[in-house]
Amino acid sequence: MVNTIKVTVWNEFRHEKEMEECKELYPEGMHSVIAEYLSELNMDVNKATLDEADHGLTEEVLDNTDVLIWWGHCAHNEVKDEVVDRVHQRVLSGMGLIVLHSGHFSKIFRKLMGSSCDLKWRCADEKERLWIVKPNHPIVKGLNKEYIELAEEEMYGEFFDIPEPDEIIFLSWFEGGELFRSGCTFSRGRGKIFYFRPGHETNPSYYNKDILKVIGNAVTWAADNSKLDVNFGNVQPLEEL
Amino acid sequence: MVNTIKVTVWNEFRHEKEMEECKELYPEGMHSVIAEYLSELNMDVNKATLDEADHGLTEEVLDNTDVLIWWGHCAHNEVKDEVVDRVHQRVLSGMGLIVLHSGHFSKIFRKLMGSSCDLKWRCADEKERLWIVKPNHPIVKGLNKEYIELAEEEMYGEFFDIPEPDEIIFLSWFEGGELFRSGCTFSRGRGKIFYFRPGHETNPSYYNKDILKVIGNAVTWAADNSKLDVNFGNVQPLEEL
Amino acid sequence: MVNTIKVTVWNEFRHEKEMEECKELYPEGMHSVIAEYLSELNMDVNKATLDEADHGLTEEVLDNTDVLIWWGHCAHNEVKDEVVDRVHQRVLSGMGLIVLHSGHFSKIFRKLMGSSCDLKWRCADEKERLWIVKPNHPIVKGLNKEYIELAEEEMYGEFFDIPEPDEIIFLSWFEGGELFRSGCTFSRGRGKIFYFRPGHETNPSYYNKDILKVIGNAVTWAADNSKLDVNFGNVQPLEEL
Amino acid sequence: MVNTIKVTVWNEFRHEKEMEECKELYPEGMHSVIAEYLSELNMDVNKATLDEADHGLTEEVLDNTDVLIWWGHCAHNEVKDEVVDRVHQRVLSGMGLIVLHSGHFSKIFRKLMGSSCDLKWRCADEKERLWIVKPNHPIVKGLNKEYIELAEEEMYGEFFDIPEPDEIIFLSWFEGGELFRSGCTFSRGRGKIFYFRPGHETNPSYYNKDILKVIGNAVTWAADNSKLDVNFGNVQPLEEL
Repeated sequence: MVNTIKVTVWNEFRHEKEMEECKELYPEGMHSVIAEYLSELNMDVNKATLDEADHGLTEEVLDNTDVLIWWGHCAHNEVKDEVVDRVHQRVLSGMGLIVLHSGHFSKIFRKLMGSSCDLKWRCADEKERLWIVKPNHPIVKGLNKEYIELAEEEMYGEFFDIPEPDEIIFLSWFEGGELFRSGCTFSRGRGKIFYFRPGHETNPSYYNKDILKVIGNAVTWAADNSKLDVNFGNVQPLEEL
Repeated sequence: MVNTIKVTVWNEFRHEKEMEECKELYPEGMHSVIAEYLSELNMDVNKATLDEADHGLTEEVLDNTDVLIWWGHCAHNEVKDEVVDRVHQRVLSGMGLIVLHSGHFSKIFRKLMGSSCDLKWRCADEKERLWIVKPNHPIVKGLNKEYIELAEEEMYGEFFDIPEPDEIIFLSWFEGGELFRSGCTFSRGRGKIFYFRPGHETNPSYYNKDILKVIGNAVTWAADNSKLDVNFGNVQPLEEL
Repeated sequence: MVNTIKVTVWNEFRHEKEMEECKELYPEGMHSVIAEYLSELNMDVNKATLDEADHGLTEEVLDNTDVLIWWGHCAHNEVKDEVVDRVHQRVLSGMGLIVLHSGHFSKIFRKLMGSSCDLKWRCADEKERLWIVKPNHPIVKGLNKEYIELAEEEMYGEFFDIPEPDEIIFLSWFEGGELFRSGCTFSRGRGKIFYFRPGHETNPSYYNKDILKVIGNAVTWAADNSKLDVNFGNVQPLEEL
Repeated sequence: MVNTIKVTVWNEFRHEKEMEECKELYPEGMHSVIAEYLSELNMDVNKATLDEADHGLTEEVLDNTDVLIWWGHCAHNEVKDEVVDRVHQRVLSGMGLIVLHSGHFSKIFRKLMGSSCDLKWRCADEKERLWIVKPNHPIVKGLNKEYIELAEEEMYGEFFDIPEPDEIIFLSWFEGGELFRSGCTFSRGRGKIFYFRPGHETNPSYYNKDILKVIGNAVTWAADNSKLDVNFGNVQPLEEL
């Protein structure tokens, strides 16, 4: 009775080919590690990358996507506006979107947020603690701890120029003195969006079981959507009620 | 793998015994109509009423309650503070709470909200339209319409003295010129709370299939809770990180 | 010690030239009526319209604008993207923005919101009641009533496809059975935004003293901005704390 | 034309009499330091303490209070319920309330919040950085920095069991690995509430110019209140509209 969730994991997939350190860590790409985890949850998982035709995000692929996961960094500008508009329309129509890490600066996230989405950052392999500040939320199901600790991560710091999130699930503490709203939900149209801060391309964050659990929970949360039909436009005439 | 949701439907259950009009409409009480519907959803349903010992809300009953539904009106003050405190603790610990209609003035709702919870009202069997303003929310799943129309209801009007809701799902339009935030979610501690405005004791709103669907969805939503353990108090010593 | 607020009232200013009914009602444009009121509040008021060079919104004009008011309808697409981007940057940097009525579909509002901003509408000169649901907010200062009634207005109805507002100040009830979130605040970057639903070009809403009072209050609210400097980008090195 | 703001600074005022360390730091009480600063802003300042009759919070005093500041810690339970109810009613009627530091556990704050208001803590004179995450808010006016740093403070950590704040202005980073939502606004009834985390009784935080500036701004913000009259109760009859 519960339908299988159809999820597409999108990755820029350049660092893994071009940076030795990243290639060793994620030989088949970060998206493949995430996709494998989601498959174990019995989700129907598809992978898509920048260098495919239409970036792997054709109308047909999106027709078969309940939730899209997005990782991008060095090539945000290579994503075609036409594809960004297509994804934007789908989100407004109810497709879920999980934006990871440097995806904060992707065209699609900025278009949905309406603000610059800029932030502070530092690459120093420093300690991050993601504190849970909404312990009743479905996205933290099964964590059994009060924070997730990552021994080495890139730092992202405030001010993070996003609109007020609907919900803040995680706040990150960093060794060097900064903090960050690192797990935030948003609603746009009928779509549900989750921004999740980890992981940097040279840190093994997507092998962390808790990080994977959060991503899996977020997909389930984003797919839990009524997607009611709504009508826009002219309503005529004025009825006698 | 999904656990059966345990729900307790609490009703003051006085109007149904004392008012002829109400007795005819709900001979076994409003709670029985709601309970029957929830049973059809394969929930594990319990009923409790004011005139039972401990108002039917013993620790044992609450141990077996994931979500509590509350309807009260003329006898709010007869609810013992001890029971109110017990329910309050349970909500903070993660039990879901659905407050219906005149339950806005119950001790438990006011204690959770911290404000007066006062409002305007008029009994004139007038038309109400509950417009959905969050069409992606799990609480409106399966409605397949943009508003629920009730031909005859009591009017509740703004200003409704509640804290800012976390989410507004429904806004009610009334024939006589008023409107109301009629479907609102709140979070207190680890508990999830939904206030839902219908139904007046002399109107057949709890026989309306859409109203029942919303109540059922709300129970499912409130039970979808990570209930992570949280520790409070002294944390010692200052670690070297 | 309090600086004079510099406000620019922008209007498409086409209906007033092209529609007889509108010309009679607002011979010098809706913006002129609003501007006159704001001048009486001792604000420093400038007017700008679509058909001026750069739509009257040069960098120099914006340098002298604390808060921009926007009314547009039939010619949204004639607003140059370059000017939209310029205004967008200014809002993110802290300029206030008041978007009126059909401005919901303007390029600038949609760019800031990230959603379609679509809605239902009906032109039937019907009654609107704007109920105040946040009676402690500076935007409703001095109203001394619980709702503003307009005898004849265009209807706007839900679902209004906007992100969750930071605050809902007004909810509108309409004679024909619809309702609308008609006074909403948003934050984007360091800018403060207020969307306010009235007034249709053939209705005299901008002559209504309460509507004018709300617009004046909103300008004062939007100009009440710390505009703290924020730094983005690389933070180096990892300090010993 | 702008009325002078009437502020009452309430302090438990026990530590300053009983703890040598605190007595030396604040010989006339923390409230006196805050009161002196507010006087310099030309506010009309009154002081009140626990051991006065009615805790110094008579109806007459509250009649002359636009905003009440609250500091308490070891003697929360000595505050009479009657006075708590009196203050609660005033807040719902529009009096502003600024709750400082250990006031998170005061009867009045808990009554207004409806949750336990519990948290983690550690007394280790550790470094705190209060990061500003809402740089356009009136409460951070004039700070000219991105965070306030306090060399030595008590740590407060999440999960902080409060309802979702209306706005989060500050997030605190602590040396020992925790973080905290340390500057939060709430609305209850027509009252505006600000919770601000510093300062521990043995740390000189209330001598810090930035902390004082925030408190002063918060008083101004809380006093900026429309306080519209609202009517509750029966509305009769159903009008023909």
